[in-house]
Amino acid sequence: MSKYFSEERSAEVVNARMGDAINPRLKEVMASLVTHLHAFAKDVDLSQEEWDIAIDFLTRTGQICTEERQEFILLSDILGFSMLVDAISNRRPEGATENTVFGPFHVANAPVREFGETISLDGKGEPCLFTGKVLDTDGTPIAGACVDVWSDNSDGYYDVQQPDIQPKWNNRGRFITREDGSYSFVGIKPVSYPIPDDGPVGKLLGALGRHPYRPAHMHFLVTAEGHQTIVTHTFVGDDSYIGDDTVFGVKETLVAPFTKTDGSETSWLSEFDFVMVRA
Amino acid sequence: MSKYFSEERSAEVVNARMGDAINPRLKEVMASLVTHLHAFAKDVDLSQEEWDIAIDFLTRTGQICTEERQEFILLSDILGFSMLVDAISNRRPEGATENTVFGPFHVANAPVREFGETISLDGKGEPCLFTGKVLDTDGTPIAGACVDVWSDNSDGYYDVQQPDIQPKWNNRGRFITREDGSYSFVGIKPVSYPIPDDGPVGKLLGALGRHPYRPAHMHFLVTAEGHQTIVTHTFVGDDSYIGDDTVFGVKETLVAPFTKTDGSETSWLSEFDFVMVRA
Repeated sequence: MSKYFSEERSAEVVNARMGDAINPRLKEVMASLVTHLHAFAKDVDLSQEEWDIAIDFLTRTGQICTEERQEFILLSDILGFSMLVDAISNRRPEGATENTVFGPFHVANAPVREFGETISLDGKGEPCLFTGKVLDTDGTPIAGACVDVWSDNSDGYYDVQQPDIQPKWNNRGRFITREDGSYSFVGIKPVSYPIPDDGPVGKLLGALGRHPYRPAHMHFLVTAEGHQTIVTHTFVGDDSYIGDDTVFGVKETLVAPFTKTDGSETSWLSEFDFVMVRA
Repeated sequence: MSKYFSEERSAEVVNARMGDAINPRLKEVMASLVTHLHAFAKDVDLSQEEWDIAIDFLTRTGQICTEERQEFILLSDILGFSMLVDAISNRRPEGATENTVFGPFHVANAPVREFGETISLDGKGEPCLFTGKVLDTDGTPIAGACVDVWSDNSDGYYDVQQPDIQPKWNNRGRFITREDGSYSFVGIKPVSYPIPDDGPVGKLLGALGRHPYRPAHMHFLVTAEGHQTIVTHTFVGDDSYIGDDTVFGVKETLVAPFTKTDGSETSWLSEFDFVMVRA
């Protein structure tokens, strides 16, 4: 058999070139990547002109990235790849709260607030009481768990996207669960918003006949000693984008109740329990 | 069946999101790409940490690109993807000269030189007479074909890589075939050289236990009216990298004879005929 490249044995020839003494996991991952990428090119008879366009797209995607903007993550998001990696990394037993994508808008060390306190500092939007419990898979309440939450404001922007307009830590906060595992805070009923779509990924979305919107959601990062961390959202079920989140973040079990109330302070109530798996 | 994302149906869910009225070829290519990329992640159980490393790698690869440097093409090259796309785009009948990668060092409009003239302007290296015919697949000589050639100098650099050191058009030229289809020029016996390996792709090569070298070769771009253009190299068969070109450009049929001569002007002879397919 020729040691040289051929269309038929292309991936085999490339993978045979890897050294024997290299990191075995790198070898496994690269061999699979090369095999699948070559199979893709063959499946569609990829032309030189098409590949030139792809090279240009990848280059522009890299070049628009800054400290504040990660266009490759955006690309991964809209191809469902981020969700897939998240799913693979966070397989959990039935009944445990499912993960979803972390997203780019978390800020570490948000203020720790009291049970029931508000995170809506700009006073905009429809006030909503978020409450529930953090539980173990056997139903035991987890006291002292940290529930770190963040959402957009009523205009669809996170505070970090509008540092000159929104107060710092607007719609963010950390809450520690009580003895009975309960948490409670006032936020707003979140609203849907588009992912940044003025770059190469936005143009691709357009060419694919897709919109850039995410359905309204509240982010949760739930941590507790001895338990697997949960990175997830709760989604507003009546959002018009609930069925076609542009980053595929929605899962059936994460669609939360948002019910209208006649409370004097809040006009919505969203109850949701988080079920954590032991580490 | 849920319309939401799931690990099992991930590619299906993503592809179902494409619009009906989009470019059908884009739809076909993207559906295949998503299917293969998701299959890759599942095959290796890709972890979040590994994907973070890949995102960082892709970002750095984009950011090192300039007008003069195309790191994504380099990446494509070392994964055998450029050769594969070239092969798919240039399937030819047995007996026709095979294509290989174009490479980044061609410069359009090199000087047209006389039959037998030299392209080695710096006087370095071992002079070599390159000669042969351009033929149709039925053996008919093709007169007036353009044979555009380029190679590195004896230090392993193309003139465009050393604009301050090498004379302009060093080791480049265009030659027009005679009535009998023949071409002839004096160049040097080319030498092996490394692809640029000081960026992310070079680091990847290192991690894969691979070297960055290409075996010595002369580039040919052969064009003739009514015939498919040939983009190829001829390779020096006794080069130590002939069996492991880092960009996989070598094909059995492109390994050319380089024979030692006792000519007064040239010390090597390389005869090679090009066989063109009608367009």
